[in-house]
This record gives sequence, structure tokens and C-alpha cells, in this order.
Amino acid sequence: MTSEQDKSQARGPIVLSIDAMGGDRGPATIVAGLAAFAQRNKQARFILHGPADQLTQLVEKRKLGKRVEIRDAQGVVSMEDKPSHVMRNGQDTSMWSTLDSVRNGEATVAVSCGNTGALMLLSMVRLRKLPGVNRPAIAVLWPSKNPQGFNVMLDVGADIRADADDLLKYALMGASYARNGLSLERPRVGLLNVGTEEHKGRAELKQAHELISEAAEGNNFEFVGFAEGGDIPGDRCDVIVTDGFTGNIALKTGEGTASLIGQFLREAFAYSPLSRVAALLALTSLKRLQARIDPRRKNGGVFLGLNGTVVKSHGAADATGVAAAVELAYDLAQSGFGDRLAARIASAASSAEESAAQAGAEQEKDGTDP
Amino acid sequence: MTSEQDKSQARGPIVLSIDAMGGDRGPATIVAGLAAFAQRNKQARFILHGPADQLTQLVEKRKLGKRVEIRDAQGVVSMEDKPSHVMRNGQDTSMWSTLDSVRNGEATVAVSCGNTGALMLLSMVRLRKLPGVNRPAIAVLWPSKNPQGFNVMLDVGADIRADADDLLKYALMGASYARNGLSLERPRVGLLNVGTEEHKGRAELKQAHELISEAAEGNNFEFVGFAEGGDIPGDRCDVIVTDGFTGNIALKTGEGTASLIGQFLREAFAYSPLSRVAALLALTSLKRLQARIDPRRKNGGVFLGLNGTVVKSHGAADATGVAAAVELAYDLAQSGFGDRLAARIASAASSAEESAAQAGAEQEKDGTDP
Repeated sequence: MTSEQDKSQARGPIVLSIDAMGGDRGPATIVAGLAAFAQRNKQARFILHGPADQLTQLVEKRKLGKRVEIRDAQGVVSMEDKPSHVMRNGQDTSMWSTLDSVRNGEATVAVSCGNTGALMLLSMVRLRKLPGVNRPAIAVLWPSKNPQGFNVMLDVGADIRADADDLLKYALMGASYARNGLSLERPRVGLLNVGTEEHKGRAELKQAHELISEAAEGNNFEFVGFAEGGDIPGDRCDVIVTDGFTGNIALKTGEGTASLIGQFLREAFAYSPLSRVAALLALTSLKRLQARIDPRRKNGGVFLGLNGTVVKSHGAADATGVAAAVELAYDLAQSGFGDRLAARIASAASSAEESAAQAGAEQEKDGTDP
Repeated sequence: MTSEQDKSQARGPIVLSIDAMGGDRGPATIVAGLAAFAQRNKQARFILHGPADQLTQLVEKRKLGKRVEIRDAQGVVSMEDKPSHVMRNGQDTSMWSTLDSVRNGEATVAVSCGNTGALMLLSMVRLRKLPGVNRPAIAVLWPSKNPQGFNVMLDVGADIRADADDLLKYALMGASYARNGLSLERPRVGLLNVGTEEHKGRAELKQAHELISEAAEGNNFEFVGFAEGGDIPGDRCDVIVTDGFTGNIALKTGEGTASLIGQFLREAFAYSPLSRVAALLALTSLKRLQARIDPRRKNGGVFLGLNGTVVKSHGAADATGVAAAVELAYDLAQSGFGDRLAARIASAASSAEESAAQAGAEQEKDGTDP
């Protein structure tokens, strides 16, 4: 798989596989976002999946005919469909077709706005997990006080459980994402817990603390130990590792808090005629703030731990959001992220095997040579 | 206990037991906060715990002599002390003495700015858990889009685990807190999960969903089912129930996000000379926003599920924060919250026993009468 991808990259421009269906706003918004990105980037090519008749019109209207290949798929995965149902009956859907283009090596990264649960399950079935990964994860970029402006957080909802070994893999994958997606040479990784003291928290967290601590040196990241909720948007680490239950709730709490403050801000400036005048003068500053916390700027959760990269855009994304998700997919494809991540996991797995074998040999030696 | 408290309340003014030590800013700040509250409220009386020599001076300076009784305690629990160490060796500390005034029935509610873990463990040992409560919880008031301005969230960190029955008790206690602390007649309770569909989430959550659903009608609250992170500051429910691990991380993520947006807002208004002028004009509006998200306004986690109410103020609280925590304690004491909560838990426990007995009787009947 890896060598095939290398070949296809050497052969020509980067190809992205885009699911035109399943977003809340329909295919016209997806194609509009695609067009916005295509105008900023003249190299990328696309395979677009959905009902051919509908898509042909949309693509012609945006004059994207030369750069977009349409792949007909009549079925659509809705937000209400159960993942297991889609897995059994979704062969004709645009989501299935989108993943298969990555599976076949025609495209490097897949992008979909559709049903997260279905997309994750289909991705596991069609792309399969990387050797050494038991639970894939969804990683997001979270606005932070760090110079790079964002922290990586994972898992935000691929799986509600994670054992110590899963959390170690999340650390490796998150560090790899931070190196490729945020250009950090040696990212600082924190393990989410209810306190920073080493004796605190659940048993699997103490065990994961040990595993990640041992892996840090050989895998080119720094382990800062336990992190707290306040560190997710903070500057103590660049990567936050947690299980998908906790991560999902933290993500939605953060989004909810930002939305609450936004509402309070609007109400504060609408309070009196004078404050409405002040709002007019403050408009540029407020827009500057808005731009920094706009979730559309970095729209897209990235599925990590599969043979191939999948970017999940927010279902409610508008054209600006879709363009950001496609851009993220392009950046990851260009940096060769998928292959690097696979190599990192493979080397960590083999070094773990080596040290296990070594430990076994030493034990044996201890046994025979008292 | 209950009848004794009733008597003591009938006998005279409400008495609060205040720990003068253990806060980050020292006893002068605690006494300043106490004085600020005492000026707004002329009825309340206080028992103040800490080194008598130091406290006498501070109390005289604030002219609180007539309303404050000083209880000498030379030991101080520091933020670094392990809870188990304090439990074994903390008899001489101001924290221990503060709780004992509630234990002895001299005061209705205790207030401390000290080490949360030590305060919770000591509270369990000295006040004991309410019959029917296995795990006490810490509840906070969270700024929200609801008309009352705040939602109740629990547990935010008393225990990192909670089984289905604990979550049921949190629902009962949270609803009781919302009725007494937020004056909501029939609070809406949500159970925190990664999605609102009933099939989602961990096994204990599905079980808790069932238990809380059954308890709602008889306990005068509405159960809205599963809630998501975004509902914590939202308006779908008034009470959010979760385990202390998830709740603690959500709380700190929310605080961190608010702090990040505050920093971005300051930077946006400091960007250029023009934006600095705009900031001057917008000052009133920004102060109005600040006031609404100021955590000092509702400072204090409340320990629920014990024989007596304990308010835990933020360790870093300034005088304004301390005054808010003392006010919360006073309001809860005045509403007879402790007794009402105990009665609610006792009635829920006996009705659960009744229905269990009834179910047993019916089973027996079914068995003998086919």
C-alpha cells in the first residue's frame, strides 16, 4: 500500500476523494467549498462522489470540469442511519465510494461531511486499521494559547473506551500529526487527567503514563505527564491524549462555552444606544476576535490509525468550512503524513517487540545462569 | 440530627462555620470577604477557625467582634497535603475544627478555601454520608443560556467513579439544589453522554438512564434524557449529571476556554491605536460581559450527600470571591436545604425499597398462583 501511494504521488498531482453528499446543506455547498479551495490551489485534483446527474450540473456551473472526476453513487448516508446498517447495506452510497477511491490508491485522502459514526465504521472496514493500532482515533485542532495557535486533541469520539496501550498509540499518532500538521519538531504531549500529580486518576491512566513516558525519547516527542482540562486550550502542551468519551465531552463543552460567551458579548453590546455605538467602533476588533475563534478556520477531525487518511468535516459546514476541510486534507496529503504515521507506528511496534523479546531473553538468561 | 438543626434554627440567627486558613491568599483575605458579606447581611453569625492570635487582630480591624466567635486551631492543611495524611493527623487543623462545628450542630453550613481532596475526605469522615448515598458529589453553578443564568452540574470531582445508582442520587441531589439554590420548581435534569440517542454510551449510563427516568415523576423533576457537552452552558436542561472524572475535565475545559477567549479579546482590542480607542468606548459593554462570566460571582462548589452542607470556595478566591461563597452558604442554610435534601434522599430510598418489596411480593404471588 505504502509503495503504491509513493508511486502515485510521484506520478502526478495530489488527488483528493470528496463525498458530495451527507452534509446538512447538500451537495451545492460541498461543490462551492471545493471550488473555493480549487481557486487558491491550482495543482490538486478531485474525485467527487454522488448522483452523477446532480453533480455534473454543479461542477459545470463552477467551471471545475477539468479538475474533477465525477463518480456516480446514488445512495446517501443520512445523519440518522445506524453505522452497522450502513456497513451492511451501504455499498451504493457516496460515502462508501469516497473511501474506496483511497482504498484503491486512486486518491490519497478522503473528505466527508457525513454521519461520523458511519464514516468511522466504514473507514475501519474499507481501509482497515494500521498494524499495531487497536482503536483508531479522531483528532482535532483546538484553538490554544500556544504560538502555533492550535493544539492537537485526540480521541474526540471514535471510541468511548481506551486502554493504556490505545492511549500510547494516541500519543504517537498525535505527536506525528503535530509534527506534520503544525510543523512542531518535538511536540509536547500531555495525558488528560483530573490532576497533575502522578498518583491521581484511574488505573489505565497510571499505566499509560508509564508507557508514554518510556516511548517519548525514541519517538521524538516530550512527555509533560498528566494534563488538566485547562491545558487543552493552554500552552503547557501541544498534544492532549484522552479516551473518546472524555474527549468528545470536552470538545462539545468548549464549543458550548465559546457560543455562550459569544451570545453574552452580543448582548453586552446591544444593551443601550451608547453601547451600540461602541459596538460599531469596536467592529474591527470584534471581527478580529471572531476570526481567531471561528471553528470554520480549522474545520475537520482527522481519522488516525487507518491505512489512509480521512478528514471528517462538520456536518453543518458552509462553503468556507468545506474549503478548510479540503485544504487540511491537501496539506496532510502533501506532507506524506499517512506514510510517516504508518512508519512511526510500525517502528514503535517493532521496538516494543524487540524490548519484549530482549526482556524475555534476559529473563531466560537469569533463569539459566543464577 | 434533623430535629436538632430545626431547633437550633428556631432558636436564633443562622450560624456559619468558616475556615480562615488554607486559601492561597491567607486569612486576611478570608476575613475581608467575611466582612464584605457581613455588611450586606446583618443577621448572620460566624464561627471562625484558625490561629486565635492572628484572627483576633483581623476581626478587630474589621469591627466584626460581636458577630464572630473565634475558635483557636493552630494547624493548617496545605494544598500539597495528601488527604489520607490529613485524615489521620489533622485533628489540630482549622479545617477539622470548621467541620466539627457543623457536626456538633453549632453551625448549619461550613465554608473553606482549602485543599479540595482533604476537605472532601474529612467531610465524609466527620459529617458522614447521608443514609442511601454511597458517593457524595461536588456541585457547581455553571453560567448558562437559561433564564436563571446558571445550570447545576455535578459531580465535578468528589470521586472519579460513579455507577448507575450514584448517578441516580446525583440527579436527586442536583434537582434538590436547583430547587433551593436557583428557585426552579421542576428542574430539567440531563445525563451527560457522547450523544443524545438512547443506544449510545457506556453500560452504566444506559442503566442510569432507566433509573433516573423512573425516579423523575415521584421526585418532582423532569428528565430530558442524555445531554451533551454543549448542553452544560446551554438551555436544554437545568441540571447536568455526570461522574467526577468527566465533570472535572468539563469544568476545567470550560474555564480554560473562557480564559482563552478573554485573552484573544484583550489582544483584539490592543491590536492598533484605533482599536485601543474603540476599547475605551466599549469599556462599559466589556465590563458588562466580564461581570456575567466572572467566576467570582458564583464562587463555591457545594458538597452534597453528607449530614451537613459544605461550601468549597476556590483556593485563589479574593475577598469578592470569599464573600460570594459565604453568601451561597447563607442562602442554602436559610432555605433549609440540608434538611430538604436529606428528606428527599430518604424518601427516594424508602420508595425504592417499597417498590422492590412490592416487586418481590408480586413475584412470590406469581410463583404460588400460576
